[in-house]
Amino acid sequence: MSVRVAVDAMGGDHAPEEIVKGAVLAAREYNIPVQLVGKLEKIRAELGKYNTKDLDIELVRADEVIGMDEAPGSALRKKKNASIVVTVDQVAKGNSQALVAAGSTGAAMAASLFGLGRLPNIDRPAIGVLLPTMDKPVLILDAGANSACEPEMLYQFAIMGSSFLSAVLGVENPRVGILNIGGEQGKGNPLVQQTYRILEEKQETLNFIGNVEGREMFMGYCDVVVCDGFVGNVTLKVTEGVAKMVMELFRSEVNKSLLAKIGALIAKPALMNMKKKTDSDEYGGALLLGIKGICVIGHGSSKAYAIKNAIKLAKESVEGDVNGKISKLYELSRT
Amino acid sequence: MSVRVAVDAMGGDHAPEEIVKGAVLAAREYNIPVQLVGKLEKIRAELGKYNTKDLDIELVRADEVIGMDEAPGSALRKKKNASIVVTVDQVAKGNSQALVAAGSTGAAMAASLFGLGRLPNIDRPAIGVLLPTMDKPVLILDAGANSACEPEMLYQFAIMGSSFLSAVLGVENPRVGILNIGGEQGKGNPLVQQTYRILEEKQETLNFIGNVEGREMFMGYCDVVVCDGFVGNVTLKVTEGVAKMVMELFRSEVNKSLLAKIGALIAKPALMNMKKKTDSDEYGGALLLGIKGICVIGHGSSKAYAIKNAIKLAKESVEGDVNGKISKLYELSRT
Repeated sequence: MSVRVAVDAMGGDHAPEEIVKGAVLAAREYNIPVQLVGKLEKIRAELGKYNTKDLDIELVRADEVIGMDEAPGSALRKKKNASIVVTVDQVAKGNSQALVAAGSTGAAMAASLFGLGRLPNIDRPAIGVLLPTMDKPVLILDAGANSACEPEMLYQFAIMGSSFLSAVLGVENPRVGILNIGGEQGKGNPLVQQTYRILEEKQETLNFIGNVEGREMFMGYCDVVVCDGFVGNVTLKVTEGVAKMVMELFRSEVNKSLLAKIGALIAKPALMNMKKKTDSDEYGGALLLGIKGICVIGHGSSKAYAIKNAIKLAKESVEGDVNGKISKLYELSRT
Repeated sequence: MSVRVAVDAMGGDHAPEEIVKGAVLAAREYNIPVQLVGKLEKIRAELGKYNTKDLDIELVRADEVIGMDEAPGSALRKKKNASIVVTVDQVAKGNSQALVAAGSTGAAMAASLFGLGRLPNIDRPAIGVLLPTMDKPVLILDAGANSACEPEMLYQFAIMGSSFLSAVLGVENPRVGILNIGGEQGKGNPLVQQTYRILEEKQETLNFIGNVEGREMFMGYCDVVVCDGFVGNVTLKVTEGVAKMVMELFRSEVNKSLLAKIGALIAKPALMNMKKKTDSDEYGGALLLGIKGICVIGHGSSKAYAIKNAIKLAKESVEGDVNGKISKLYELSRT
C-alpha cells in the first residue's frame, strides 16, 4: 500500500518555512508522496528554495488559518476553509492516508474527530506521546485530549497504546502500567483504583504490570503508561520543564568558569548524544489514537527535522495498520 | 522562644545511623536541643560515634517501628509505642515544638493528624514540597496527602503555602498559581476551573497569578503552585525521575569515551553546582501543613545532610510562626 501524507503547511510557530522544508526532507528521504495544505503562494515561495524535481509533492489550497490561541470549537465553525480542516478532508476523501499538523492541538483533534470519526468501540480519542527513558521510550496516554476520564476510557487507552507500540515500534507484548502515586493495588484516586481492577481481568490480552510511579516511568520498566489527560499533560510538560531546567542550569554554571567551558567543550559529543536521546523532535509528534485515520500532532515549536520525523511516524503508523490492530486487540480482550 | 525538635530516629532507609548523625550535626551547627526517639540501645550505639558532650540531645524510648510498607492506619492501631507515635507525642506534650520523620509518609501524616489535630478552618492537611527552578524554589502542594480534593481545599492550600513562604523563606507577597494544562481561564478539569474562580476573588489577600503549566513552573514564574495530591505527587516523582534520567544518560554517554570523561572531570565543579541546585536534600524534607504543630517529613532515602536540613526547616518553621500566619491569612481572606 503506497502511503501519502497530508501536511498542514500553515500550523506551528515556524509555519510555513519549517513545515515545507520538513515535508521536502521527508519526501526525499522516505520517497513518499506528500500533500502540502495552505496558502498556495506562501507554500510555493518556500518550495522554490529546494530542488523538488523528483519529489511527489502536491499543493492543496486552504486560505484560512486557525491560530494557536483561538478556541478550537468556534474557530472550526467560523473557518470552514482552515488549513487543518482541508488537511483532514484530504484523508477523509482518501487522497492521503494520514495527516501531520503542528498548529493548535485542540483544533487538530476536533477537526480529526469531526472529519474522520471515532474507531468502533472507542469512546474518546487520546493523545499518545513517546517519552524518553533510560531504556526504550515509554508511550504515555492520554497526554491531554480528555481532562476528565472514566476507568473504561483508560482501558481503551491501554488497548490503543499497546496496539500502537506493537504495530509501529515492533515492541512485543508491550508492558502496560497505570500512572499512580504508589506501587501497591489500592493506591491513588478512584479512577486509577477502578482501572486497576479492569486491567487485571484483561491480562490474557494485555500485558498489565500494575501501577507505575513517576520515577519508575523514566527507568524503562514499562512500555505504555495510561492516565487521564490532565495528569498526562501535566506529566508531559513537567518532563519538558525539568529537562530544560537541568540543561539551562548546567549551561549557566559552565559559563561561570573558563575551565568548565573547556571541559564542557571536550565533553560536547557526549552532551549532544544525551540531548538527542531526550529530544522530543526524534519522534516528531504525538499520535491522536482512536480516530478512523492517522493523525500526528507536532509540537507547536516544530522545525523541519521534527516535521520530517512526524511524517515518518505517520507513514509507519499507516503501514503498521495501527487502527486494524486496535480493533483486533479490543475484540480479543472482550471475550 | 527556644525551639526543640523531636526526631524519629527509627524512620527511613538509613535509620538509625544517618538519622542520629544528622541530629548531631544539627544540634551542633544550629545550637538547638534535639530529642531522638526510638530504641535506646541502638540510638546510644550511634551516638557513641560522635562527641556530643556540649550538645543538648535527649533520648526518648519507643520500642516499635512502623515499616515503609505497612498500611498506616492498621499499623498505628497495632503499634501504640511506635517511634513515630512517640515522636508526635513529644510535640503534643510540649516537650518539643516540631518533629522530623523520614519513615513512612502515610504513618507520619496519620500520627500527626491524630496526635496534634488540624488547624482551625483547615479541612485537610497537605504536604508542601520545595522544587528547584531556574530561579527561586517553588512550593508545590498538595504533594500527596489527599489524592482527591475539593476546590475549597485548594484554596486552603494556597493560604498555607503562601503563609509558609513568607514566614519561613521571607518571600514577600508570594505568587500563587494553579497547576493546570493551559494558561487561560477555563482550561482543565472542574476542580481547577472552580479553584480559579475562588482564588480570583481572594486577590486582595492572595497574590493569585492564574494558571501555571508544568513547563513554566520550573522557570521560576511562581512561588506557590496548588493542585490535588494525586497530580502533585505525580509531578514530584516525575521531577525526580527526569532529573535522575538526565544525569544517568549523561554519565553513561561520558563513560563511552575517554575524552568525554576528561571533559566531564574538568567541568565537574559546574556539574556539582548544578546537582546541588536541583538536589532535594538541600531542603531536607516536605512540610505537613495544616496541623497544630510542625512536622517535616524527610525522604525515605534521607542521609545525615538531609536530616540536618530537615531539622533546620522544622526550627525555622517554628520561629517563623507558620501556623499563626496561616490562621491570620485565612481570617483576612475570608472578609
